[in-house]
Amino acid sequence: MQVIPPALERLIAELTRLPGIGKKTATRLALYVLRRPAAEALSLAESLAELHNSIQLCSRCFTFSEIDPCPICGDGRRNSRLVCVVEEPGDLMAIEKTAAFRGVYHILHGVLSPMEGIGPQELKIRELFARVSKGQVDEILLATSSTVPGEATASYLIDKLAGLDVKVTRLACGIPMGMDIKYADEYTLARAIDSRQLME
Amino acid sequence: MQVIPPALERLIAELTRLPGIGKKTATRLALYVLRRPAAEALSLAESLAELHNSIQLCSRCFTFSEIDPCPICGDGRRNSRLVCVVEEPGDLMAIEKTAAFRGVYHILHGVLSPMEGIGPQELKIRELFARVSKGQVDEILLATSSTVPGEATASYLIDKLAGLDVKVTRLACGIPMGMDIKYADEYTLARAIDSRQLME
Repeated sequence: MQVIPPALERLIAELTRLPGIGKKTATRLALYVLRRPAAEALSLAESLAELHNSIQLCSRCFTFSEIDPCPICGDGRRNSRLVCVVEEPGDLMAIEKTAAFRGVYHILHGVLSPMEGIGPQELKIRELFARVSKGQVDEILLATSSTVPGEATASYLIDKLAGLDVKVTRLACGIPMGMDIKYADEYTLARAIDSRQLME
Repeated sequence: MQVIPPALERLIAELTRLPGIGKKTATRLALYVLRRPAAEALSLAESLAELHNSIQLCSRCFTFSEIDPCPICGDGRRNSRLVCVVEEPGDLMAIEKTAAFRGVYHILHGVLSPMEGIGPQELKIRELFARVSKGQVDEILLATSSTVPGEATASYLIDKLAGLDVKVTRLACGIPMGMDIKYADEYTLARAIDSRQLME
């Protein structure tokens, strides 16, 4: 017996393709949308349909943007000679929220992962070297995640950038702010000890 | 500075209106949709736009359905004189999954909640009484949740149905299957003791 109407079933199947959304959550969301006025479903549908039309990649840093260059690359007050390398546009947004960085970005669109067939050619690495070799960059701040593939990607870039005339830095690793030391995992703690800083 | 493109911002705002989806999850989902091919976003958009067009309420039980009467009400092999009263179409789906119920349903579309201004007029209660007083029903199985508003709604219905010629039953409450008694909460345990069953 077809208990779930096909149109609802289809929406549930579509929602299940999103990350972190299982069958139960998808059903709950779809039923919620159905209970609300049709205008709300249409409004969400429109914003989904519009998304890829209005957004492209910035030709300099490769973040998602409606204009090219993106607002950050186009902002003359930012230091375009300091380039922060991140994995995804979401990382850029997280760093921008801190308001602690006044340089520009370079989005790799992924991390090296030989197991999944993602080598340097699949990422925006050639484009990064192009920016460096044009002499446009003084410092590269590597801000890939402190995960195994993130660290591997950073190591690869450190290696390849060694021959070029550019300073390479990496985000500091250590105890998160506000964390009790006895709850920090041993790897983070070991890293924090290795990277201990001299108080002056 | 506008770091998040407006089209992305709009999708994030739309997603945040869904239940259980905060700003962080909405951002993660929207960025995921943006990274995937445009066809996938369009397909999700279409199924959202189609939803309200193709689904209506069954005129007998008020569940969501593409046809009227719904497949359950229209199924001659089911006992249409045994009516299970539930809060939402999602509850009907959960009960159907058990394959333990061969009657039909009546969806209230909510629970009584005086604080939120939801009285009997806001629910499909008048329609339930219409079914009963037409002499179409032998037994009403109350399957509202065992929450405070669910119990209150059941009590209200038990009261009102008392004068009519219909048997009223309620889902059994007790220890969930597979649960160790020492982990059951005291209310459930007390209820299970009160409702203890004679073994024959």
